[in-house]
Amino acid sequence: MALIVQKYGGTSVGNPDRIRNVAKRIKAQRDRGDQVVVVVSARSGVTNELIDRAKSLNPSPDEREMDTLLAIGEQETIALTAIALHAIGVQAVSRTGPQAGIITDDAHTRARILDVTGGDIKRQLDEGKVVIVAGFQGLTANGEVTTLGRGGSDLSAIALAWALKADVCQIYTDVDGVYTADPRVVPDARKLDLLSYDEMLELASSGSKVMQARSVEFAQKYNVLFEVRSSFNDEPGTIVKAEAPNMEQILVRGVAVDKNQVKVTLSELPDRPGVAATLFQALGAQGVVVDMIIQNIGRAGLANLTFTVAKEDVPRSEKVAKAVITELGGGKLLPPADIAKVSAVGIGMRTHSGVAAKFFGALAKAGVNIMMITTSEIKISVAIEPAQADTAARALHAAFDLGKA
Amino acid sequence: MALIVQKYGGTSVGNPDRIRNVAKRIKAQRDRGDQVVVVVSARSGVTNELIDRAKSLNPSPDEREMDTLLAIGEQETIALTAIALHAIGVQAVSRTGPQAGIITDDAHTRARILDVTGGDIKRQLDEGKVVIVAGFQGLTANGEVTTLGRGGSDLSAIALAWALKADVCQIYTDVDGVYTADPRVVPDARKLDLLSYDEMLELASSGSKVMQARSVEFAQKYNVLFEVRSSFNDEPGTIVKAEAPNMEQILVRGVAVDKNQVKVTLSELPDRPGVAATLFQALGAQGVVVDMIIQNIGRAGLANLTFTVAKEDVPRSEKVAKAVITELGGGKLLPPADIAKVSAVGIGMRTHSGVAAKFFGALAKAGVNIMMITTSEIKISVAIEPAQADTAARALHAAFDLGKA
Repeated sequence: MALIVQKYGGTSVGNPDRIRNVAKRIKAQRDRGDQVVVVVSARSGVTNELIDRAKSLNPSPDEREMDTLLAIGEQETIALTAIALHAIGVQAVSRTGPQAGIITDDAHTRARILDVTGGDIKRQLDEGKVVIVAGFQGLTANGEVTTLGRGGSDLSAIALAWALKADVCQIYTDVDGVYTADPRVVPDARKLDLLSYDEMLELASSGSKVMQARSVEFAQKYNVLFEVRSSFNDEPGTIVKAEAPNMEQILVRGVAVDKNQVKVTLSELPDRPGVAATLFQALGAQGVVVDMIIQNIGRAGLANLTFTVAKEDVPRSEKVAKAVITELGGGKLLPPADIAKVSAVGIGMRTHSGVAAKFFGALAKAGVNIMMITTSEIKISVAIEPAQADTAARALHAAFDLGKA
Repeated sequence: MALIVQKYGGTSVGNPDRIRNVAKRIKAQRDRGDQVVVVVSARSGVTNELIDRAKSLNPSPDEREMDTLLAIGEQETIALTAIALHAIGVQAVSRTGPQAGIITDDAHTRARILDVTGGDIKRQLDEGKVVIVAGFQGLTANGEVTTLGRGGSDLSAIALAWALKADVCQIYTDVDGVYTADPRVVPDARKLDLLSYDEMLELASSGSKVMQARSVEFAQKYNVLFEVRSSFNDEPGTIVKAEAPNMEQILVRGVAVDKNQVKVTLSELPDRPGVAATLFQALGAQGVVVDMIIQNIGRAGLANLTFTVAKEDVPRSEKVAKAVITELGGGKLLPPADIAKVSAVGIGMRTHSGVAAKFFGALAKAGVNIMMITTSEIKISVAIEPAQADTAARALHAAFDLGKA
């Protein structure tokens, strides 16, 4: 008998038919003799509906009240899922985030989990019940409702799996697992059976939309084994777990493309120490996350600084850049340009040489022009023209033989 | 500076415009220097939507889960009301029923309030905030969410007014107050300035839909002064409070009509002791509330028993009646017939004679045929043909001079 935490996202519980489908899957797991805890999100769309309703009353609604408001989305789903389970003869009980003892700090709308007590979940499981827990929400020490921000339900599931010492945390989603590349772009992309936390993290931060990095980081920190799999079929998904020696035999695990990046360039900046520091401190203070950076010396000894940010951060970045140019007493802000970031990820890079050579060789052969490069211990990323992104992904996928098991 | 509890029903918070309107009313009260606690219902319609969604998954959904589900209706309204107050510069904070310390028993979907701690409401008020509390919901000692059943938000408001020692509990609704009769039926019906709890109770149980009896009973038990008034204008409403000697000067306070009653007749029952007891015990065991009763002896020494019940209880009543006939070994169940119950209510009846004579005289003069009669210390009710109900109400209203202040 295993203890399994399952997490179903908003699409999987989007309407009564889908909730019935989820209930059937839970029953199948329970019928195998396992103890099952289920974390559910709000049905897709409901969170945006609630935000719209609040903003129609107040363009900048209070974050504490937004948390009280948004928490109702998951509260609806837990009750309906329990009710659907009863209809097919499965004993089940719902628990809100607060009832499940998800304790957070008081950073409303983006709270961090401080502790998970689990409430009475263990007792309910021992009485033979499936426990349905509201994802995305928690409670401060003062009894205020909080929400965990984007990807919060995955985080709830992984944190509960840790607290309950579950054997596995299954993250059900609308994809079959993590692929060697986006199958819509690379026809012979293959589902991965196994990934390390580090690889999953690099893929998450490189444009693979399967999970938010914070949930993977939590799993890594507390060594929670999880599986990404589809709620629409019964195929095994992708297991993500701590690195094992044999995992390094694979040089590159996957190729990721992020088309949500924009390149911002400041040219003709005075070339003196501290220019870059001034800019990136100012960006950081505004909450802008900078990804790739290049600095070089242009004509007349003046410096050029180029960095990439997510599309939604462009207006704030331009505002900061203009202020910094004024402060420095010189420089020009060039128009922002869309770029694509293409990355190859694999823990095998740590111990194998020649990966970079093969990477750049493949892109050169495919005629892809590289604008920027960044690397980590287990990743190589390049910024290129968006129009060349798919070509680059296919070239790298083929070069590293990712289509073969 | 007074402490005022205001309660707004589902119609008053039915859409963003109405929530804005409620926020303005709250601000006006706050601007007069009063401390304000606001109890809100779910927007009208949302509770039925949620019930439908649950029943599409399970025709008889678990009551504990229904409470978790239904509680989200009020949770939405408290957050949106607080957000609307912030938009017009009023400091406000929302509290769910559990956060407000509304402690109930565990009779899910119809829980009784055991205690009200108020949580941190006093402190929030002292900090200058308006506190918005979710009506209709509470928490068991075990931390389970409960709902209070029909009229639950009124009960929440009155219970909070008691716990906080409020000066008045204002029940805002879509009518101006309690009238001497239904103004749609009796053109010169007049709004009452003042009522005793007993009169309000008799009116509530006689078809006046303004408030559920349980809230009035709670107010009477704990001596909570409340006012029924409209959320769509600024007119004073009807104050309901403990009886004072001068209130007895009014003979009859109002006339109520209940058209939701059905007469059930069992004829030719064996006339032996215990027949009525058998029937009414069986009905009580099924949760059927019987209102009026007549027993008489028909032909051949056989007994007839007639009683009235609310329309929704007719199927259960017929089932019970058939079982009792089988058990007694005799009797016939006649087809149920709609009736109207018309009542005159006033605490002055206790000390004044001649009320009954005037009551029956007025109905006789109006040609109204009486089927059944019941009386209490402060009420006379008759069952009549539904077609004669309006005629009867007008006749009684005129006979007791209720159109005059």
